[in-house]
Amino acid sequence: MALTDYGTGPYRALLEASVRYPRAPRAQWIDLDHGIALGDVRAGALTLRRTVPHLPPCVCVAVVDPGVGTERRAIAVHAMSGHLLVGPDNGLLEPAVRRLGGASAVVDLAGSPLRVAGASRTFDGRDLFGPVAGALAAGDPLSAVGRPVDPGSLVVLAVPGPVAVAGGVTVTVLEVDRFGTLVLALDDHLLHAPSIPEEGATVQVRAEGQPRAEARVGGTFADVGAGELVLYRDSDGALALAARNGSASQVLAVHAGSTLTLLWDDDEEPRRA
Amino acid sequence: MALTDYGTGPYRALLEASVRYPRAPRAQWIDLDHGIALGDVRAGALTLRRTVPHLPPCVCVAVVDPGVGTERRAIAVHAMSGHLLVGPDNGLLEPAVRRLGGASAVVDLAGSPLRVAGASRTFDGRDLFGPVAGALAAGDPLSAVGRPVDPGSLVVLAVPGPVAVAGGVTVTVLEVDRFGTLVLALDDHLLHAPSIPEEGATVQVRAEGQPRAEARVGGTFADVGAGELVLYRDSDGALALAARNGSASQVLAVHAGSTLTLLWDDDEEPRRA
Amino acid sequence: MALTDYGTGPYRALLEASVRYPRAPRAQWIDLDHGIALGDVRAGALTLRRTVPHLPPCVCVAVVDPGVGTERRAIAVHAMSGHLLVGPDNGLLEPAVRRLGGASAVVDLAGSPLRVAGASRTFDGRDLFGPVAGALAAGDPLSAVGRPVDPGSLVVLAVPGPVAVAGGVTVTVLEVDRFGTLVLALDDHLLHAPSIPEEGATVQVRAEGQPRAEARVGGTFADVGAGELVLYRDSDGALALAARNGSASQVLAVHAGSTLTLLWDDDEEPRRA
Repeated sequence: MALTDYGTGPYRALLEASVRYPRAPRAQWIDLDHGIALGDVRAGALTLRRTVPHLPPCVCVAVVDPGVGTERRAIAVHAMSGHLLVGPDNGLLEPAVRRLGGASAVVDLAGSPLRVAGASRTFDGRDLFGPVAGALAAGDPLSAVGRPVDPGSLVVLAVPGPVAVAGGVTVTVLEVDRFGTLVLALDDHLLHAPSIPEEGATVQVRAEGQPRAEARVGGTFADVGAGELVLYRDSDGALALAARNGSASQVLAVHAGSTLTLLWDDDEEPRRA
Repeated sequence: MALTDYGTGPYRALLEASVRYPRAPRAQWIDLDHGIALGDVRAGALTLRRTVPHLPPCVCVAVVDPGVGTERRAIAVHAMSGHLLVGPDNGLLEPAVRRLGGASAVVDLAGSPLRVAGASRTFDGRDLFGPVAGALAAGDPLSAVGRPVDPGSLVVLAVPGPVAVAGGVTVTVLEVDRFGTLVLALDDHLLHAPSIPEEGATVQVRAEGQPRAEARVGGTFADVGAGELVLYRDSDGALALAARNGSASQVLAVHAGSTLTLLWDDDEEPRRA
Repeated sequence: MALTDYGTGPYRALLEASVRYPRAPRAQWIDLDHGIALGDVRAGALTLRRTVPHLPPCVCVAVVDPGVGTERRAIAVHAMSGHLLVGPDNGLLEPAVRRLGGASAVVDLAGSPLRVAGASRTFDGRDLFGPVAGALAAGDPLSAVGRPVDPGSLVVLAVPGPVAVAGGVTVTVLEVDRFGTLVLALDDHLLHAPSIPEEGATVQVRAEGQPRAEARVGGTFADVGAGELVLYRDSDGALALAARNGSASQVLAVHAGSTLTLLWDDDEEPRRA
């Protein structure tokens, strides 16, 4: 399994080859996502967190690494779930590890015997992370690839939480997916939402500089009409805002990092669902 | 095998994982195309029809499914050719099935034991179609994944056929491929063309709002000069219009869905090949 | 292994299927790059040369083939390294073959028994190169797929070399990678650079029509500040120019094929590193 900002070109191929050779040629390989925006550690971390928990225990190499060649740590993590994650310790892995129950063991890859001899200083994916992932896929223990460090020492990304406002909440748009659906930072680790109205209720949506919009609280896209907004629990369990047969991102003119205010108890302007 | 409008990101990965685990980890997997335009069932159906018949009997999961969560049927189809297709019954599968000799059996996946417990209402790819495809790849019979329905009950997409005009024909551009080549709706299921002139003849091409252009009837790109148009039978057996070392789509300023008039017996303006 | 200009859609899938079936269903498959610009043989050749030498001996099918259907040769090459390359003889394979130690044997695929019966004239990837690669992956000898020709007869692409100027050198930008890094044609086959200053020195960079810029000679991105330029030996051993956490291509407004002048001994304007 691999997630990077390499795109679908030769860097991805060289990473895959470095995992497979010479130790794990028959390893099951699934490309999770190589279209992470260049150097966008947060976007990579969020995608990893939304994806890996839906996979059985496996080895996952993740590389969004603008700090390659600096003092940032390179690590491999054994999660409580049995998953093994390999990559830079820049916040990329921690959100996924936390959702997997936390780390049972972490090793620092500095001085790893798996680093390719005569390695480059700019392509740790091929020269360090890939070979480490390959060794783990071949069954090597974590202790064979690095030096144990405190499992609680992973770098943590700050993720803005929801802020209660009169009659509702202000939230950050964490991600916009390919369908234009907005994943909202309403949850504790995206798993537990504040109390929002029941299905069928109407929620007012305010994006800065945009006219007000309405969303229906629903269970699936079909609960609203074409082009209308639905606030629902997505396939990862997170609260999300989608436009049926359209793009909520376009409808609201917002993107990852934007702030939205959701009002479901609007005293100023009473409205019924 | 898989075709979707998911792009190359995490939804594709989760679909692949849902096929492989836990029943078919070593299944042969080929990504047919995940770049289908969002929700464009017709484009997905045409690509599927052009691709699957060139593959040996296999299991193919296809998901372009703007109606997920509605009453549209979810189905698995056993084609006369031995291919098994899994996906929504919204017209996506039928053109491929027809080219594969029709359906020998179809099951409705409503109530399928393969649907993931506690499944989402928005990601049938991961929660229903993938597990069904994995079970079929592992050798389960069609009867184990759904309830038999009439093999002739598949939803059929309307595909506009050619219209004879004086001296030629008016046709719809079905697809524009990556090379800018136009696949024309001249054929009965793209397989049998009306009589067009022999190789070497010149055909006049009229696209609405564009200056007239000429194409040579040929067998390959090299039958015309650089930038010139050639009307030929493509690698799928369909009639197509290409520009050598260029893009017919750009030359004629047309796209999928556009109408072209081809004239090869132009009494008004006699011309020789 | 495969490199094409097919994109990630159905042509790539049909190529992969043609390699696997019926002879090599379990062949290890790695997609090197399918995003080569349409018909850009030079770009394909450079990517192939930068990628294949980092892979163990394997079969690689490469198709960037604007001359399909013309008299250009179709070939399979056994490189001194043990790698086998299959594709059109239009300059695409030769740079990689040269880096792999040259060709020990070459066969012309005209009249190959592997060409699919009733093949198209426009899709040699599926109808000739793929089946040949599959036969080689299954262990067939080169002599079984084509007719021996002179190993020194491969078509060679002209790659512009560096030109010495007063105080430095003028070079062509060979490639711009996904990160905006410029690979420079400073090397003999990208492997041996002219003497450039030592790490820490400053080099003046002049791109036509742009203000002058400075680059630091370094070993990795971290040797310069954010947005600053570093001239370094990249992960393939070639000289490259990158902007830390940015795009050298954007900073200098240059692209593949552009010319840059590097001055490290500027008598007119003395400067210290």
